Amino acid sequence: MHPLISRYLDVRRHTLGLAEPLSPEDCAAQSMPDASPAKWHLAHTTWFFETFVLEAHESGFAPFEAAFRVLFNSYYNGVGARHPRPQRGLLTRPPLAEVLAYRADVDARMQRLLPTLVHDAALCALVELGLQHEQQHQELLVTDIKHLLSCNPMHPAYRPAQPVAVECAAAPPLVWHAWAGGLAEIGHAGGGFAFDNESPRHPVYLQPYALASRLVTNVEFAAFVDDGGYGQPAHWLAEGWDWRAAQGLEQPLYWQRDGSTWHEFTLAGLRPLQGAQPVVHLSYFEADAYARWAGARLPTEAEWEHAAAPVLAGMAASEAPGNLLHPRAAQGRGLEQLVGAAWQWTQSSYAPYPGFRAAEGAVGEYNGKFMVNQYVLRGSSCATPPGHARASYRNFFPATARWQFAGVRLAKDIG
Amino acid sequence: MHPLISRYLDVRRHTLGLAEPLSPEDCAAQSMPDASPAKWHLAHTTWFFETFVLEAHESGFAPFEAAFRVLFNSYYNGVGARHPRPQRGLLTRPPLAEVLAYRADVDARMQRLLPTLVHDAALCALVELGLQHEQQHQELLVTDIKHLLSCNPMHPAYRPAQPVAVECAAAPPLVWHAWAGGLAEIGHAGGGFAFDNESPRHPVYLQPYALASRLVTNVEFAAFVDDGGYGQPAHWLAEGWDWRAAQGLEQPLYWQRDGSTWHEFTLAGLRPLQGAQPVVHLSYFEADAYARWAGARLPTEAEWEHAAAPVLAGMAASEAPGNLLHPRAAQGRGLEQLVGAAWQWTQSSYAPYPGFRAAEGAVGEYNGKFMVNQYVLRGSSCATPPGHARASYRNFFPATARWQFAGVRLAKDIG
Amino acid sequence: MHPLISRYLDVRRHTLGLAEPLSPEDCAAQSMPDASPAKWHLAHTTWFFETFVLEAHESGFAPFEAAFRVLFNSYYNGVGARHPRPQRGLLTRPPLAEVLAYRADVDARMQRLLPTLVHDAALCALVELGLQHEQQHQELLVTDIKHLLSCNPMHPAYRPAQPVAVECAAAPPLVWHAWAGGLAEIGHAGGGFAFDNESPRHPVYLQPYALASRLVTNVEFAAFVDDGGYGQPAHWLAEGWDWRAAQGLEQPLYWQRDGSTWHEFTLAGLRPLQGAQPVVHLSYFEADAYARWAGARLPTEAEWEHAAAPVLAGMAASEAPGNLLHPRAAQGRGLEQLVGAAWQWTQSSYAPYPGFRAAEGAVGEYNGKFMVNQYVLRGSSCATPPGHARASYRNFFPATARWQFAGVRLAKDIG
Amino acid sequence: MHPLISRYLDVRRHTLGLAEPLSPEDCAAQSMPDASPAKWHLAHTTWFFETFVLEAHESGFAPFEAAFRVLFNSYYNGVGARHPRPQRGLLTRPPLAEVLAYRADVDARMQRLLPTLVHDAALCALVELGLQHEQQHQELLVTDIKHLLSCNPMHPAYRPAQPVAVECAAAPPLVWHAWAGGLAEIGHAGGGFAFDNESPRHPVYLQPYALASRLVTNVEFAAFVDDGGYGQPAHWLAEGWDWRAAQGLEQPLYWQRDGSTWHEFTLAGLRPLQGAQPVVHLSYFEADAYARWAGARLPTEAEWEHAAAPVLAGMAASEAPGNLLHPRAAQGRGLEQLVGAAWQWTQSSYAPYPGFRAAEGAVGEYNGKFMVNQYVLRGSSCATPPGHARASYRNFFPATARWQFAGVRLAKDIG
Repeated sequence: MHPLISRYLDVRRHTLGLAEPLSPEDCAAQSMPDASPAKWHLAHTTWFFETFVLEAHESGFAPFEAAFRVLFNSYYNGVGARHPRPQRGLLTRPPLAEVLAYRADVDARMQRLLPTLVHDAALCALVELGLQHEQQHQELLVTDIKHLLSCNPMHPAYRPAQPVAVECAAAPPLVWHAWAGGLAEIGHAGGGFAFDNESPRHPVYLQPYALASRLVTNVEFAAFVDDGGYGQPAHWLAEGWDWRAAQGLEQPLYWQRDGSTWHEFTLAGLRPLQGAQPVVHLSYFEADAYARWAGARLPTEAEWEHAAAPVLAGMAASEAPGNLLHPRAAQGRGLEQLVGAAWQWTQSSYAPYPGFRAAEGAVGEYNGKFMVNQYVLRGSSCATPPGHARASYRNFFPATARWQFAGVRLAKDIG
Repeated sequence: MHPLISRYLDVRRHTLGLAEPLSPEDCAAQSMPDASPAKWHLAHTTWFFETFVLEAHESGFAPFEAAFRVLFNSYYNGVGARHPRPQRGLLTRPPLAEVLAYRADVDARMQRLLPTLVHDAALCALVELGLQHEQQHQELLVTDIKHLLSCNPMHPAYRPAQPVAVECAAAPPLVWHAWAGGLAEIGHAGGGFAFDNESPRHPVYLQPYALASRLVTNVEFAAFVDDGGYGQPAHWLAEGWDWRAAQGLEQPLYWQRDGSTWHEFTLAGLRPLQGAQPVVHLSYFEADAYARWAGARLPTEAEWEHAAAPVLAGMAASEAPGNLLHPRAAQGRGLEQLVGAAWQWTQSSYAPYPGFRAAEGAVGEYNGKFMVNQYVLRGSSCATPPGHARASYRNFFPATARWQFAGVRLAKDIG
Repeated sequence: MHPLISRYLDVRRHTLGLAEPLSPEDCAAQSMPDASPAKWHLAHTTWFFETFVLEAHESGFAPFEAAFRVLFNSYYNGVGARHPRPQRGLLTRPPLAEVLAYRADVDARMQRLLPTLVHDAALCALVELGLQHEQQHQELLVTDIKHLLSCNPMHPAYRPAQPVAVECAAAPPLVWHAWAGGLAEIGHAGGGFAFDNESPRHPVYLQPYALASRLVTNVEFAAFVDDGGYGQPAHWLAEGWDWRAAQGLEQPLYWQRDGSTWHEFTLAGLRPLQGAQPVVHLSYFEADAYARWAGARLPTEAEWEHAAAPVLAGMAASEAPGNLLHPRAAQGRGLEQLVGAAWQWTQSSYAPYPGFRAAEGAVGEYNGKFMVNQYVLRGSSCATPPGHARASYRNFFPATARWQFAGVRLAKDIG
Repeated sequence: MHPLISRYLDVRRHTLGLAEPLSPEDCAAQSMPDASPAKWHLAHTTWFFETFVLEAHESGFAPFEAAFRVLFNSYYNGVGARHPRPQRGLLTRPPLAEVLAYRADVDARMQRLLPTLVHDAALCALVELGLQHEQQHQELLVTDIKHLLSCNPMHPAYRPAQPVAVECAAAPPLVWHAWAGGLAEIGHAGGGFAFDNESPRHPVYLQPYALASRLVTNVEFAAFVDDGGYGQPAHWLAEGWDWRAAQGLEQPLYWQRDGSTWHEFTLAGLRPLQGAQPVVHLSYFEADAYARWAGARLPTEAEWEHAAAPVLAGMAASEAPGNLLHPRAAQGRGLEQLVGAAWQWTQSSYAPYPGFRAAEGAVGEYNGKFMVNQYVLRGSSCATPPGHARASYRNFFPATARWQFAGVRLAKDIG
């Protein structure tokens, strides 16, 4: 079997596995406009292959169900109309079983079609884009389900049989690693898949800087909370302060104070906060406020990539952790937790690289049109599927987004 | 078997039948804050019996699941905390199967308990209140599901196998029936169940008035729409006009213009508008605007009851239509369609009758605390369960509510 | 001079006197959508005479300024377009001086026109309607200015030279006065001016009832606050409770807790709360909650009118207090404070009397189109201009309105 | 007289001149939360000197009015409480005359104090900061008044006696000027005043690029509108498209279509759109959409500064236009309209320069805390006071802000 085909089947199967612990109701609900139902993720990722691959290349193409073209379009204006995002949770029909049948049907047709097209490089690139796209939705499926379950006062677990690790030991001390700066290059270097937003590779000029060896831990962040960090405007960006006040935020999403101790809602249910593990589910505003309070700052995305690229280049893909229900504590004093633990907010606004060109056609809407009022996160998280992380990878969310596994790696100026 | 027990089992079974065509997803979704998921209706009606009957009278009472006390409380502050109403659609757990098990468990316990208590009149009254309460939720379950399905662009049917009647004949002409007015009595006369808001029976003074023989039909209402009725403020109450403009309303809920013809979304899916059938899903504001345009007015609740009571007294319960998916056209020139077709907006604000006293305890929250900014509807609708209609029955909704089977019976002053 | 002309000049002059203590800035600002700038009141009342009298009857009519027809129309769709209500505070042009010139110009033209038309009864009625309309705006001007000044943290006084009375003595005890009920008549009896909403006079059937001799005092209402009345849902209508919670209300508008004592913002600035004076600036929801807490209820408008009509008939117009900056304490044990202290919320929804007909033409929009989701207040307040109160007068506001001088007279069922 | 003192008096007098055509009402109103009343600008700029200079250095300091410390604080948490921004328009007291007296008093005290402190460099820098701050508010006073007057349907002029230039000739053709890129330096180079956000000067690496010789004109932007540019999502950033749709925007702020021609509201009132003049009052989203439609892009702030610095260095301060009511058309083919016409949106998110440090104390809140979700504009506008423009100047607004004189200079990649 051609490697692309077996990869196709692996990725598609992985998505099904993520939905496996969920009931039809779990798969249908939408807890907020930013999140999507699991069923919608299952269908939309399938829609991508049906719309962009089968419709263009399958002879005698007929849609599995004509209405799905609109129902499961996310934001591709080039494809036509789409169902309003905040109402995805009202699509009780088609039922889960029909969406699973849709997946099976498209998979069967893709398996028939792919052998005839594997020598078409452009088509293979499009299929790979669809798989990378599906991997992004795998992570969203997990974070969206976590948010949904957190709204249930019974604190149900996503996967009760596989508990989140409990780690009693303290994290290793935070150590600063320094770089001299000067002219550097960032962006996708060629070889292997990358999204269009990672190109072109280009020079940037860096001042001397240092990065923390590991992510900020729960116990460190709790010190910020206990110090009244959520109540002192001096630590906050003005817009962040107003947002925090309007929302009445006093601690990270999913933290609950229980008398004198903290509990945290996780994918395995509510449990005592594990001090050595990285703090997650922070917004940009909280991450930035913590960094100011700690006398540091967030890194730029160029600083992060310049530091991380050599480390990640030396790391076998199989070494990258990931696919866990919760990030583990750091183990050493090197540049730890670059990937597989939590996305790391940078102070870099999400913007096109110099010379950026979006792809032609509807898939050109993939990235470029979101390049405003969002901030770049680097690395990857425990919920990122295996093999999906890269030094040049640019994740992005608005400064208020809290439902991702997003944490903080501190940076500072030196010299 | 004691009649109350067999009645208990009938009503409970009827609710299950209404949910029978629905998938777990259908039962879990909530299309707007005013509506509730079918699963929630199934559970809340059960919660009523568990909380108000079993908890007080069952020896060795233990709740089926302690968390349900909060999850499935609707608005009874006397019972304690409750889950926020707009988030009922996020309760993907417990799954439908567990709610059905909850129903079965409570039913079994009720069947054990009831024979020991049927001589306790107060307890029997409480059980009857629970059954009447469940019947109200039966109607809401149907109207809430209709609204949910209407949000799906595929226009799915609730019960495809039982199509809504298609009636080609014209409705009989609208005839005016007159009453001389003077001192009359309204309110529950005793004998049989009534809600607390129907008492005390009391005198009212009526001016001479006339009521239309039947409800306003779709073809009549379409003439209002075609005449620009939604665009002329002179027909509308000022608040209604502003609301209409802000919402951009141009026709009744569930009507869709398809070229030169109207279609209507029904519980059997989308179908051409049936001209002879009564217009339904009107807000108070639309009903009132139509009446002004037609040179008439809405009746008061006293006028309606005074006229309807003798007719309904002469009608065997089995004659009352109801429990259909859509109202049928009128057949004659008498005082038609008093019950079983569509609720009829009155111009009466929902207020306590002189001397009204709410019941003691938490069930006293049933009605009285809603007596503000709502308008009374009289009669019953096609979705009202059999046996649930009465001349003194007072239904009530805010002036903007559109998702009920609510229509218009015209009234006018005479003499 | 014809009495109508001298009355015209008196009323118009009185309005100017109310604006006299205000700066151009005070007259231009709008503190909330429900309120209007004083300048707008000055202009709109003038617009009424220019539009409805001069335009129809003045030979060679030319508007003072064509744009004013739109700028100063309040809600008369029959007259054409109008400036959006929430943006009245942005009309910095025309300046106050030009609005005063507009008043002077229209007054001069009215003085020329009126002598030629005083034998036209319909025209005289229209002028009288304009004067009654202006008197209503006189009261609104005062309450709107009070709200505006209350938004200023410096607590400026409207009229510092004329301080609000400080009364140390306790109020007389609350005494219940009883009526036997039965068939009664309410509504305007003919003779003298009345708004269309006070007609037709018609029979109503009353149950036996009692009314409190005076309004609820500040000290009585403070006991409700101290008893946690704002925190117990059992006292509140459900919609009122949700509204109260969403707004975070803990006391009447204009009350401020200063350590252990209450202060109240008045038209003479902030001052210690006067216990014997009637509590004012209550919403319907607060008035209703207080009444429940006190084991009583709000009166119906029919009960109020039936009780008040004989008292007010025996009171010379000159006896009616009014036109003060704040209500005085009650003095005796009769049916006190019917007028001139504070409007009294009734439990009656604002609805048309049986047989109600709105006037023809644009002035028919005066009352009828507001008859939904509002509650009737009876009596009059300290801010009502002299001679404007009547037993049949129906004031009305939404249940959430707090910025009027509105208080509570308790009622209860008897016998 | 020491130059700083005469400069102080000049700047302060200039502010008064800007308010001179305005009535007390004009000065008090606030048309939206983003704008402030002119009276507030007059007072807040005075508050700056009283709070940061007099309070710290005047012996026997007593505030002009203690309440002003809160009323006229803008956003300095370090100074204490402040009046809510959206309610600035409700401060009818103090009246304009008192604010003018406040200005005169502080100016007199500053004139007494300054001669004793002109040798204190830190103090002089603080005074200069206050003057630069006041100049920023001079521009805001003008744009805020323009927005306020635009809300008046009478289209009043700010300064009718000084009409906005009407220019019939076509603009010179748009010519591209190219730069080779490579390592460049941007940021304040030292010598003369700069805000903290312009430092430190630092290297950046630029790709080859070209900038347009002049700003986009009204006639060019009208072609975008006529081409349906506001209706095609392909031109827009996704967030911009959603914002545009929600607001129903179809053309730039202040444009009105009058049959087949465009009119534009200006500070001299409504007048026909002048095709050769630069389009102004664009949001970032509109500027960006236009650039995409035109096959170009917005410049980065580094590109802009690198190109503009030599030109501006060669331009005498007196040459810089400015202080007009509306931007003039371009005259030549050089790098025109860098300053004095319209601010130029860049694609650069407002972020700290590498090594940025905010000033100590409350004035450290001046810039840094706004560095999120805003975009940098470069140059200056017709409303910028003389002498206030610099190559390194960084203005910033959210992507939706439209009420500034903001336009577009196109950029493109080359080579």
